[in-house]
Amino acid sequence: MSLDRLKERLESEFMQLSASPNLEKVMEPGFVDKRLYAIYLVETYHYTRHNARNQAVVATRPEALDPRYMKFCLRHAEEETGHELMAFHDLRNLGYPTLAEADLPAPLPSTQTLIDSLYRTAREGNPLARLGYSYWAEQSYAYIQPLLGMISQGLGVPDKAMTFFREHSSIDETHARVVKETIERFAKTEEDWNAIEECMVQSLKLTARMLDEVFERFLAIKEGDTARYPFLTN
Amino acid sequence: MSLDRLKERLESEFMQLSASPNLEKVMEPGFVDKRLYAIYLVETYHYTRHNARNQAVVATRPEALDPRYMKFCLRHAEEETGHELMAFHDLRNLGYPTLAEADLPAPLPSTQTLIDSLYRTAREGNPLARLGYSYWAEQSYAYIQPLLGMISQGLGVPDKAMTFFREHSSIDETHARVVKETIERFAKTEEDWNAIEECMVQSLKLTARMLDEVFERFLAIKEGDTARYPFLTN
Amino acid sequence: MSLDRLKERLESEFMQLSASPNLEKVMEPGFVDKRLYAIYLVETYHYTRHNARNQAVVATRPEALDPRYMKFCLRHAEEETGHELMAFHDLRNLGYPTLAEADLPAPLPSTQTLIDSLYRTAREGNPLARLGYSYWAEQSYAYIQPLLGMISQGLGVPDKAMTFFREHSSIDETHARVVKETIERFAKTEEDWNAIEECMVQSLKLTARMLDEVFERFLAIKEGDTARYPFLTN
Amino acid sequence: MSLDRLKERLESEFMQLSASPNLEKVMEPGFVDKRLYAIYLVETYHYTRHNARNQAVVATRPEALDPRYMKFCLRHAEEETGHELMAFHDLRNLGYPTLAEADLPAPLPSTQTLIDSLYRTAREGNPLARLGYSYWAEQSYAYIQPLLGMISQGLGVPDKAMTFFREHSSIDETHARVVKETIERFAKTEEDWNAIEECMVQSLKLTARMLDEVFERFLAIKEGDTARYPFLTN
Repeated sequence: MSLDRLKERLESEFMQLSASPNLEKVMEPGFVDKRLYAIYLVETYHYTRHNARNQAVVATRPEALDPRYMKFCLRHAEEETGHELMAFHDLRNLGYPTLAEADLPAPLPSTQTLIDSLYRTAREGNPLARLGYSYWAEQSYAYIQPLLGMISQGLGVPDKAMTFFREHSSIDETHARVVKETIERFAKTEEDWNAIEECMVQSLKLTARMLDEVFERFLAIKEGDTARYPFLTN
Repeated sequence: MSLDRLKERLESEFMQLSASPNLEKVMEPGFVDKRLYAIYLVETYHYTRHNARNQAVVATRPEALDPRYMKFCLRHAEEETGHELMAFHDLRNLGYPTLAEADLPAPLPSTQTLIDSLYRTAREGNPLARLGYSYWAEQSYAYIQPLLGMISQGLGVPDKAMTFFREHSSIDETHARVVKETIERFAKTEEDWNAIEECMVQSLKLTARMLDEVFERFLAIKEGDTARYPFLTN
Repeated sequence: MSLDRLKERLESEFMQLSASPNLEKVMEPGFVDKRLYAIYLVETYHYTRHNARNQAVVATRPEALDPRYMKFCLRHAEEETGHELMAFHDLRNLGYPTLAEADLPAPLPSTQTLIDSLYRTAREGNPLARLGYSYWAEQSYAYIQPLLGMISQGLGVPDKAMTFFREHSSIDETHARVVKETIERFAKTEEDWNAIEECMVQSLKLTARMLDEVFERFLAIKEGDTARYPFLTN
Repeated sequence: MSLDRLKERLESEFMQLSASPNLEKVMEPGFVDKRLYAIYLVETYHYTRHNARNQAVVATRPEALDPRYMKFCLRHAEEETGHELMAFHDLRNLGYPTLAEADLPAPLPSTQTLIDSLYRTAREGNPLARLGYSYWAEQSYAYIQPLLGMISQGLGVPDKAMTFFREHSSIDETHARVVKETIERFAKTEEDWNAIEECMVQSLKLTARMLDEVFERFLAIKEGDTARYPFLTN
């Protein structure tokens, strides 16, 4: 296998997911408002909070790992540490300036499922598998670019509430390159490549489900059910 | 509490431990030989192999940690990654050039006990507790200086079989300073300081027991029982 | 909250899930064959293999638990131990008598997601949450009764390849009662009841996704893609 | 290897440990008082609290285990569940009737070391290794019989403060038999037997260290240092 095949698979998966009927609704002028973005930031806060941790978990595995790969994992975990605070900062700047971390609702079930899956992969999967998550996650910000425009213009979200995405689209270019190099350097067997691909596809699908659930929650809020997000007064 | 009290306690513990009758025997000219050093390197290989891992474990804890402390843990883990290979390299250079990692015996029970204790501390203890281990471990190389002289001169161990200790006595000066700063920066409550002190004392005692068991194994080998170390032909 | 509300919620979720278009296809005479049942047994083997384990995990949690609840968890885990062998036995009796456990493909991604979610719930969720899984799982065999008829008659599956389901529909009547009593005995706070309900709903949804993926794999096999199941020669 | 060799080794280890100078002091009329027993009960509370848990951990391991051995572990864990409450009950009946579990000091470092070692053995050691702990622990009450006499007569401890030991000396006769049968049934390779023996020896030594530390704490209390045990007013 090769990076090329990984890329092909990623594009085909992205294609399928972007056919989601929810996405059409999101793009429909006037249908969504900044509360959708707020809910998304809450979930981003949650999964991002665990990304540094589950990345570090790979470096705590009992078996022998190539020290250079261990170092990659630790450095990468270090870089991601605290990024959930950026998402939280954006949420406050969206118009909820007194919000505290303790006020945030628990992760949605689908977000929790994504988190669970990444920890298990990091802990028990093929030691290289988690690279499949980094591989797509750090390229995704390019794909999201048009969405960002919509968020800032269509929803009127101010720049100061978009630091997480702006930061990541610039940081992650370098990361994406390093992740590719790391995959090429350490993936040796067909099993390694398959594990990376499987983690890529599965984490992408679970993320898509998270996005669907974010959208469903937005619909519920629109219809007046604000129980889970009492701070979203609009 | 304060770094001063920690230092005082460390000195008092070191004092007690250095009164070990085994140490006298070790210093007695002609009593020990390079096989003692070899056994010690085997155990050093084992616990060092786990040091990076249990240091990283702190950064995988579910609770909220100060991101700067998380980063310290990850960076520190990264620095320690692969150091067991230095100990293994020294062992080969001691006169066993064909030895493979797979040939090494399992950790001695007392080494395993030290390893177990550090993992549990990292996983479930006060999140700052493990600093107590770093605190003494990275200062210890100063204390060991005279022992190193004995090893190189008394036992005729060549320089190329002492890289682990030479490296660590120089690396760890900086580390020791960073560890002290980290303790001062993050230890806030009496509970934090006590946890750091307790981890310091306990890991020091478990290390002393490891050294005792290393010595006992050397005595056994001297009397002809080489079952555990078939490669130590001397 | 109460058992009544839990039951209501369960029925409403079952209702939604049973509207799956896949189910219609399954019921369509001649559309599916015993290979669908075989794939299902493979996945049943996998999640069942983990059910005893993740049930036991609850009893290994560090915090104080009511000893009577710990005993319930351990006894329940004991009862489920080895049940994956029943599913495997049925698979062999379906016409693959030489199959070995080692020949089975890894769990499907959606099955793995269900397994991951249950371990995390057992390890870190509300200590009572996993009861929500037992609650529906052990009642489900009543709901499945009509499906069983279809499997045995429509697909011509012999009785000796249906021990897992026949056994569970009888065992689980008692279990279901005990689970209800346990919930009523130990669930004290609104938080407890919510955690039980959330685990019920989430594990039910993840199971539904597993069933969907089983069906998709069957479709793939029908179209000739047998890579994952080389033994399914039909 | 065989049960006979295990028994021999156990006896030789018991012999060595019973030569402890502390034991002589304990037996010296008038030297110790019920506070020694109280400290011991505190530590017994702690390690017993974890025994059911680390026994259950064996049954949560990811690898395939013989279902009959898994069931043994779960049943055994169930039997030990809640026994720490017996130790706590005895402590209260020793003359501290208002003591709450929350008042108990944390485990002594040596007790914690024993606990850590058993969890690691259960989680990562040879799956049969923990039987080595049960093997000696459940026979030990026979050896302790003379000590019990001393406690009840020499220290004037009432019967109602000795339920833990009285119960265990009767329960554990059956257990000890079951443990022996389980070892004989499942230990197949030399590696299995060695792992069982190593766990036996190591947990016995760590228990001996716990007893030594209990004694040291008693000496400290005798000299007026009651900081750790404010409730021990004598």
